[in-house]
Amino acid sequence: MNKKKIFNDPVYGFTSIPHGIIFDLIEHPYYQRLRRISQLGLSHYVYPGALHTRFHHCLGAMHLMTQAIETLKSKDVEISKKEARGALIAILLHDIGHAPFSHALEHTLVNVHHEELSELFMQKLNEEFKGKLDIAIQIFQNKYPKKFLHQLVSSQLDMDRMDYLNRDSFFTGVSEGVIGYDRIIKMLTVKNNELMVEEKGIYSVEKFLIARRLMYWQVYLHKTVLAAEQMLIRTLKRAKELAQQGVELEASEGLKFFLYENITLKDFKKNRNVLLDKYASLDDVDILSALKNWSNHNDYVLSFLSKRIIERKLFKIKMQNEPFKSDYVKDLRHMIVNNLPKGRSEALDYLVFEGKESNSAYTTNKDEIKILYKNGKVVPMSDASDHGVQPKIITKHYICYPKY
Amino acid sequence: MNKKKIFNDPVYGFTSIPHGIIFDLIEHPYYQRLRRISQLGLSHYVYPGALHTRFHHCLGAMHLMTQAIETLKSKDVEISKKEARGALIAILLHDIGHAPFSHALEHTLVNVHHEELSELFMQKLNEEFKGKLDIAIQIFQNKYPKKFLHQLVSSQLDMDRMDYLNRDSFFTGVSEGVIGYDRIIKMLTVKNNELMVEEKGIYSVEKFLIARRLMYWQVYLHKTVLAAEQMLIRTLKRAKELAQQGVELEASEGLKFFLYENITLKDFKKNRNVLLDKYASLDDVDILSALKNWSNHNDYVLSFLSKRIIERKLFKIKMQNEPFKSDYVKDLRHMIVNNLPKGRSEALDYLVFEGKESNSAYTTNKDEIKILYKNGKVVPMSDASDHGVQPKIITKHYICYPKY
Amino acid sequence: MNKKKIFNDPVYGFTSIPHGIIFDLIEHPYYQRLRRISQLGLSHYVYPGALHTRFHHCLGAMHLMTQAIETLKSKDVEISKKEARGALIAILLHDIGHAPFSHALEHTLVNVHHEELSELFMQKLNEEFKGKLDIAIQIFQNKYPKKFLHQLVSSQLDMDRMDYLNRDSFFTGVSEGVIGYDRIIKMLTVKNNELMVEEKGIYSVEKFLIARRLMYWQVYLHKTVLAAEQMLIRTLKRAKELAQQGVELEASEGLKFFLYENITLKDFKKNRNVLLDKYASLDDVDILSALKNWSNHNDYVLSFLSKRIIERKLFKIKMQNEPFKSDYVKDLRHMIVNNLPKGRSEALDYLVFEGKESNSAYTTNKDEIKILYKNGKVVPMSDASDHGVQPKIITKHYICYPKY
Amino acid sequence: MNKKKIFNDPVYGFTSIPHGIIFDLIEHPYYQRLRRISQLGLSHYVYPGALHTRFHHCLGAMHLMTQAIETLKSKDVEISKKEARGALIAILLHDIGHAPFSHALEHTLVNVHHEELSELFMQKLNEEFKGKLDIAIQIFQNKYPKKFLHQLVSSQLDMDRMDYLNRDSFFTGVSEGVIGYDRIIKMLTVKNNELMVEEKGIYSVEKFLIARRLMYWQVYLHKTVLAAEQMLIRTLKRAKELAQQGVELEASEGLKFFLYENITLKDFKKNRNVLLDKYASLDDVDILSALKNWSNHNDYVLSFLSKRIIERKLFKIKMQNEPFKSDYVKDLRHMIVNNLPKGRSEALDYLVFEGKESNSAYTTNKDEIKILYKNGKVVPMSDASDHGVQPKIITKHYICYPKY
Repeated sequence: MNKKKIFNDPVYGFTSIPHGIIFDLIEHPYYQRLRRISQLGLSHYVYPGALHTRFHHCLGAMHLMTQAIETLKSKDVEISKKEARGALIAILLHDIGHAPFSHALEHTLVNVHHEELSELFMQKLNEEFKGKLDIAIQIFQNKYPKKFLHQLVSSQLDMDRMDYLNRDSFFTGVSEGVIGYDRIIKMLTVKNNELMVEEKGIYSVEKFLIARRLMYWQVYLHKTVLAAEQMLIRTLKRAKELAQQGVELEASEGLKFFLYENITLKDFKKNRNVLLDKYASLDDVDILSALKNWSNHNDYVLSFLSKRIIERKLFKIKMQNEPFKSDYVKDLRHMIVNNLPKGRSEALDYLVFEGKESNSAYTTNKDEIKILYKNGKVVPMSDASDHGVQPKIITKHYICYPKY
Repeated sequence: MNKKKIFNDPVYGFTSIPHGIIFDLIEHPYYQRLRRISQLGLSHYVYPGALHTRFHHCLGAMHLMTQAIETLKSKDVEISKKEARGALIAILLHDIGHAPFSHALEHTLVNVHHEELSELFMQKLNEEFKGKLDIAIQIFQNKYPKKFLHQLVSSQLDMDRMDYLNRDSFFTGVSEGVIGYDRIIKMLTVKNNELMVEEKGIYSVEKFLIARRLMYWQVYLHKTVLAAEQMLIRTLKRAKELAQQGVELEASEGLKFFLYENITLKDFKKNRNVLLDKYASLDDVDILSALKNWSNHNDYVLSFLSKRIIERKLFKIKMQNEPFKSDYVKDLRHMIVNNLPKGRSEALDYLVFEGKESNSAYTTNKDEIKILYKNGKVVPMSDASDHGVQPKIITKHYICYPKY
Repeated sequence: MNKKKIFNDPVYGFTSIPHGIIFDLIEHPYYQRLRRISQLGLSHYVYPGALHTRFHHCLGAMHLMTQAIETLKSKDVEISKKEARGALIAILLHDIGHAPFSHALEHTLVNVHHEELSELFMQKLNEEFKGKLDIAIQIFQNKYPKKFLHQLVSSQLDMDRMDYLNRDSFFTGVSEGVIGYDRIIKMLTVKNNELMVEEKGIYSVEKFLIARRLMYWQVYLHKTVLAAEQMLIRTLKRAKELAQQGVELEASEGLKFFLYENITLKDFKKNRNVLLDKYASLDDVDILSALKNWSNHNDYVLSFLSKRIIERKLFKIKMQNEPFKSDYVKDLRHMIVNNLPKGRSEALDYLVFEGKESNSAYTTNKDEIKILYKNGKVVPMSDASDHGVQPKIITKHYICYPKY
Repeated sequence: MNKKKIFNDPVYGFTSIPHGIIFDLIEHPYYQRLRRISQLGLSHYVYPGALHTRFHHCLGAMHLMTQAIETLKSKDVEISKKEARGALIAILLHDIGHAPFSHALEHTLVNVHHEELSELFMQKLNEEFKGKLDIAIQIFQNKYPKKFLHQLVSSQLDMDRMDYLNRDSFFTGVSEGVIGYDRIIKMLTVKNNELMVEEKGIYSVEKFLIARRLMYWQVYLHKTVLAAEQMLIRTLKRAKELAQQGVELEASEGLKFFLYENITLKDFKKNRNVLLDKYASLDDVDILSALKNWSNHNDYVLSFLSKRIIERKLFKIKMQNEPFKSDYVKDLRHMIVNNLPKGRSEALDYLVFEGKESNSAYTTNKDEIKILYKNGKVVPMSDASDHGVQPKIITKHYICYPKY
């Protein structure tokens, strides 16, 4: 039976799904669940096209991995069939542990980093598939001797970033994120067991780093998106608080479980198979249907927030380079508290909140992107670019509150 | 307060939302609900990018309407500000009555055509907005004297079709649907109160009709999509059957209401405001969370179908130009019944089912697209094209059944 | 020395030039000459972006050939390295015999079909490259046993057409020509030594045939383009006439040679190397510089036409499905002759001229496109399509004359 | 007579040509000449799609000007019909004085800046069109009171740059040049008579500046392009040298004139109409046909360079951040001189040559791009960007010599 499948990716055109096990992994309910995890949380509230999912992103990243491996092999880098399969599986599954709404709810329902969960899922799948994921897991953990394979999965120039910039740019329509991914991939090479970029690709890498920086501020940390996602986080926090107090909340069985219990990474490791199945039952649908339901809950904060998210009556948000002055914040809180119904002043901390977000397009403290010059010299990107690439960290402060 | 808003449509680039009331209509929860109604039902099971919604489609169609009106005005067709606003509102709201998953569940939850419901929603909104939708409603109903305005909203060359071909082609990646919409719009004109296309646009219209035909068979009636949607329809049908028998089903309040009650168009008209609010509480989320829940229901048919949809274990489907031979169907049913658990043979009709789908790219029996020649002659498209456009109806028969 | 080269094709993205000899052929002055032969003659007078050349088209067609061969090999069609190279060379050089302005001046300067000349060039290059083009020439001539290789180079679904539709559509901006080439190529297969398309590709093939038909009437035979090219043909015809009468004409050495001599295919074969070099010295530059020069020639017809082409003061053209009535033509000629300077009535036949153009999107009389069904049946495209593909020949009559 | 014309720009889709005089200017032979002036000189030797012309670029820039004016008017900036026409004409004609091959041959045939010549052409056209270009010329010269109109034509954020980045990126296929031009244009505004960008457009401006910088090094100053253009410059320089010595050169009448005479700006002003007509007779065709001809000239340098350009046997080029060491240059010259035929050592300076190129993406010393914040503050771009925009000048040194 020929399981090879072609599918139509509006970003890359026709792409193929290789190898038997990869097809089987994609058909697995764990992977199919990613169809219901949006890639960009609530960004579609600002960019209505941005409804794409982790499912699609991971397939795309795997497609780029296929191209990267082909390029490297054409330059006489040795990669066996098993290693190629390992790298493809590692990138395919790198996000399988994501919570609903991707980053938006990470650490909210369960205080575990999604990569830890991805690794646990891979181990469970490795058992199901009888050890066929061994190499993939080693690559994912950076324990496989050919370090460059890990770098293709996770580094400052990995296939993950390459795909998400392409894809997020495509579905949001934000042209600032367009990158020359095909050129970068054709310029990849390996020296001393490390992934590098040939000299000719230097401008494309520069562009890639800038595109990433711009996408952060225009999309990922867009202030309206931030407001929406912070409202979502606070809604779930409130729900968890109520759950811990024994208040009854309508929700799917899976969501209830994680609201009423406090599950740690240690729990996941101890009771892996059961807890992963519980976790895998959660996706955006559980959250959205809870929000719709909670819109009528009698807890003031919970219903206030839920209804506003569903109806997209988002909080106002201010953003600036410096922290907000305490007087300003005090006045604002005063104004909001006056608008609250009598006896609801405990809601204030859920309705007015501050925070900050930081982003650095590029870091030089570890694992820099390396440029291989024609003369054999290896130069870190921060020295290779005429303009320097900018390890500068940008931090922005924000404050949110309801409009009345 | 300046309510003008620019948003980023990956299909058209930057587009603006004009006029105060239009902005307010978009902010209304009825319209925001369309964010949770997918444009193409379950097509994303075949084309993973096809997650776009009615929300986005209607905005896009309105954008094209703006362009069409501008073109017509530049050709000295008289359109007042109020008429322009009416046409924009009519196209913006033309799909507001859609059921979850758009066409897939039309007539399943409620046996009412979505356009009837759209009209009821418009009437309710007209009350809320104090008569400002009067002209829009007349245009929608084709009661407004300037007939061409209705034709821009609903005809064989309306802004609805223009947008959905563009958009569905963009998000599926199916290049067969690419149309020269900007050329067609620039070639629109009005004569004798009717919408026409200038002679120079004839090839673009031909291409548009062909693109629509190809999109039907490659996307809208793609056999895997058909299988998925038929499974969904049967799941809801089963749920309704169980509900009518008094079986308990977990579901959102809104979904429960429409499963346990049988609401007709007459009911909607009699008890409009209450029932529309009930209906407006329904969207894809309700269905998906029910499917997830029902995957564990103890009714064999309901859980079998629900689980398979969620995990994308779709039925096999065969499609052909002739009806299936009765012997073939008998054998198939026999095979399936043998695979059923003991005592479950009543499930058979839910697991093996036949159907047919028809499509005609173009009909000549009414309201043909008209071409206006330079010499003033008006020729129906079916005579104007060198190759004739093809009013031929294509019918395909299908049969579905589970793979074991 | 690694001669592999990547170049940036705005149509396909990064593409590579494979194999040593192919790189050398591209560097050969015969091939570099194609940089100065526009792909679409004077179409850029209507579509200003359409300045692309045969050079680019042939590289693009070769790129598609690489993909087609890869696809076929992945389906276990045996193609040796030498055969692959042969097919690539055959498509790379298939247009090397083109006259300046491609089809516009074919048969005007030299009454020989460009394919005959391409073959002669290949034979000469085969001598230079010591027989390495043997297989390419056999494939080009359809004498190579694996017939499907020839079909990839020349048939109703060859890589030539696939590229020119893509490319001409891209550079003109005419979306009617957009085709799903990547899908078609992925659906190619071979059975009984013949090229076929898998069943799933049927809609893409249909779209391809329609796109080609629409491109004919919207671009290749666009009436303004036709007028411009007919003016060009008549200019050269006049120049040749004058040359034969011994009138002196300024022109490049190469152009003079072909104006003053009458070279036939027989001559080319007899005196191949010398005549090919003469011919290879001709390109669009020779024609354009002659036109600029002749704008001041004292022959009325020659300067009248030359100047009008250079300044884009094109003749008026009427186009219709029936021949023009003789009375109409008579009146028109009468009007034009009255506008001519005294004693210039011999110019009339150059200034008023009729003609006709025909196009058939698809022919069924030989070598139909074949569809391979899943069940193994082979069906010609004209039977496989639901709507039939249309072997209908469309003929249009035109008449041209100067505007005053 | 309705002269409004729609044309198909693959970069922007359908665009219209407004106003009667604009149509007439486009039809003028001076403007039609731009069809034969390539936008990017010899860049197509590296990027084969880059054959677009000044003709197309200027139409595109005018299209963007239409959009910019529309945006500003929608923000209540007063622009009269005559001013709008003036701005459109100014941008349409801003490049009309370009020499063949655009920048490549500026200062080679005639030592006058192309903008000076554009102005002279405008003045001559103003006489032909009876003063209708008055405002356009004032805007072009920055003498018109509404300064922002000049800034739309010529500044660090003008419609010229906006179009050429778009267009050059499109036709080369270099994605690094993609900019969000539509967003920038929608964010334009005017304050204190100056063009500004609204705060929300800041990232798009940043991206625009970076895209411009990357395009310089990847396209405009690409080393192979540089080598080709320097060869071309030296060929013309040699031809001029020979002409001045009285050597006979075949060339078009116009080209001969500028080779044998030394025309200065003063001459142009004194004898404007005659000299502009001479100049307007020159375009890429004259140069290319001369090169083809000179390939057989008996001057060693002239034929050596001409033939190599035509056959694309380009010089090797090395490029680096520091000047080349004198020893290295000496050795190189020594090697080349040894390869020269006997008695040809005077050719050496034409075959080995050094040079340098500089580029700064952005300058802060005058006329900075200004950002208008929501609170009314105006901030120069160099302060508004989180990362600072980089006024840093990059200089690269190169050396060229023939490969043997």
